[in-house]
Amino acid sequence: MTYKEPSLQDIQAAHSRIKPYIHKTPILTSKSLDQLSGVELFFKCENFQKVGAFKARGAMNGVLSLTKEELIRGVCTHSSGNHAQALALAARENGSNAFIVMPNNAPVVKKNAVVGYGAEVIECEPTLQARESTVETVMKEKGAVFIHPYNDYNIIAGQATAAKEVYETLEKIELDYILAPVGGGGLLSGTALATKYISASTKIIGCEPEGANDAYQSFQTKQLVPSENPMTIADGLLTSLGDKTFPIIINHVDDILTVSDIEIMEALKLTWERMKIIIEPSSAVCLAVVLKNKTLFKNKKVGIIISGGNVELSKIKF
Amino acid sequence: MTYKEPSLQDIQAAHSRIKPYIHKTPILTSKSLDQLSGVELFFKCENFQKVGAFKARGAMNGVLSLTKEELIRGVCTHSSGNHAQALALAARENGSNAFIVMPNNAPVVKKNAVVGYGAEVIECEPTLQARESTVETVMKEKGAVFIHPYNDYNIIAGQATAAKEVYETLEKIELDYILAPVGGGGLLSGTALATKYISASTKIIGCEPEGANDAYQSFQTKQLVPSENPMTIADGLLTSLGDKTFPIIINHVDDILTVSDIEIMEALKLTWERMKIIIEPSSAVCLAVVLKNKTLFKNKKVGIIISGGNVELSKIKF
Repeated sequence: MTYKEPSLQDIQAAHSRIKPYIHKTPILTSKSLDQLSGVELFFKCENFQKVGAFKARGAMNGVLSLTKEELIRGVCTHSSGNHAQALALAARENGSNAFIVMPNNAPVVKKNAVVGYGAEVIECEPTLQARESTVETVMKEKGAVFIHPYNDYNIIAGQATAAKEVYETLEKIELDYILAPVGGGGLLSGTALATKYISASTKIIGCEPEGANDAYQSFQTKQLVPSENPMTIADGLLTSLGDKTFPIIINHVDDILTVSDIEIMEALKLTWERMKIIIEPSSAVCLAVVLKNKTLFKNKKVGIIISGGNVELSKIKF
Repeated sequence: MTYKEPSLQDIQAAHSRIKPYIHKTPILTSKSLDQLSGVELFFKCENFQKVGAFKARGAMNGVLSLTKEELIRGVCTHSSGNHAQALALAARENGSNAFIVMPNNAPVVKKNAVVGYGAEVIECEPTLQARESTVETVMKEKGAVFIHPYNDYNIIAGQATAAKEVYETLEKIELDYILAPVGGGGLLSGTALATKYISASTKIIGCEPEGANDAYQSFQTKQLVPSENPMTIADGLLTSLGDKTFPIIINHVDDILTVSDIEIMEALKLTWERMKIIIEPSSAVCLAVVLKNKTLFKNKKVGIIISGGNVELSKIKF
């Protein structure tokens, strides 16, 4: 297996590049959740990031890594989630155009959000084949550069800056564990690399819904198991690992732990109630893992990357 | 009309007294809400305060202003809301006992919260008469000192410290307006006094639900109109002004503006969605007032006191 994962220098360069365009998000703590869990928790709040999610980091690094000629041609991706908005914003802030391929059954609110950031939405049938052929057409016709939501070293280096900020902000507080949710693995692989370089003694745990446990299976079997018919409330974590994120995860992540949707919803409610912050279900997976494994984490210092806060409120029922 | 409202020195003394026990809450901004409203908004986030509301300030100042003898006797109040929890916490942190009189139809979750802070709940029939007689009995039998939820100068001086922190944090940014919700008037009268002393050019607006517009009526008629059969989703704002808060409001508040429950719910949803923070309906009243009066606030710098974030999530339907 040969691959060239981002180096510390790559991550530092990504951070310098994107810093003027992103928020340095706060790290929040909660006495109430610490007491409840028996764990000392540090929440890196990427729900307060631009576009409401860590995806702003990777997309911005992707766009800022383009040549002038590429910027003029524009960028494209397929996503109906946070990466779509993040790429749209990154393109607009750099005088480029973004073309976002979305399934024609994506919620109107998602399309509007992307259009609101000045991007062009191109609809396709809701199949993998239609998506890929539509992206190819857009790349050909518009000359746009494809920026993958996660299986891209620039994206991974960008997402790594969230964990980098955690260690820089906490300074002398040494984390025993850092937890990140895992869908396609961009955030988890970036978190793993930043941790390896900056806080080598901190263990890295990927957190995944049981209903979309392809990363867990891939980690156990050491073979890239694709996500098939995933079913979970954590709708940001449906995708499969990629051939760039998978090796990084295999090599640097200490474990992947899964939780049920009921456990995710309990953790979501607790976070909203006790911390007074809106996080999306995909972000509640990490606290759910902590609460399910209290013995493992007992009295430890645990960092949690809150990946985002984009929720369709009408869909959440407690 | 003679009364002795808290002086700047009283507010400063209250702040010094309570600082070790309260959070200096952050002031958040939101590009998205600024664009939507055409107003430059500064949100003082007391939803992140201890017990999830500004009430921690007043109650702490009330308890810290007691003599040693009084502390030993304990404190009591009537409240099924945030003041109950705030007084319970303040008593516990100062080695005192709190006796909280609550109607026997108050939600169990509210009673449990107060008991969780170590206070004793004393139930009464859900009438004004029963409440007052029960409080009297508790004061007699326990010797406890009554600390009113808002009609008390120590409480008002404590609540004033939220606005004081706003002006200290914003330093050279001069607010054109500061907005606070009004129920019993503790927060609004404290905000008005702090503003008068520290940022005299800032106009003070009280924000009230149409369904509980007794402060609006009192302000218009210059007579204390009691709250009768109030009906609003903003359940922290049901109470009448008191004879201590009313004169301060009449003398120092520039206007009281009202909004409907539909407008409150729209503002609540916008705040949750765009700012990713949980605020309670009573706190959304201020943003609702801004959105209803865009011309008045156009391009102005407007501070908003987010009073709290204690919500029964299952009751909120968007």
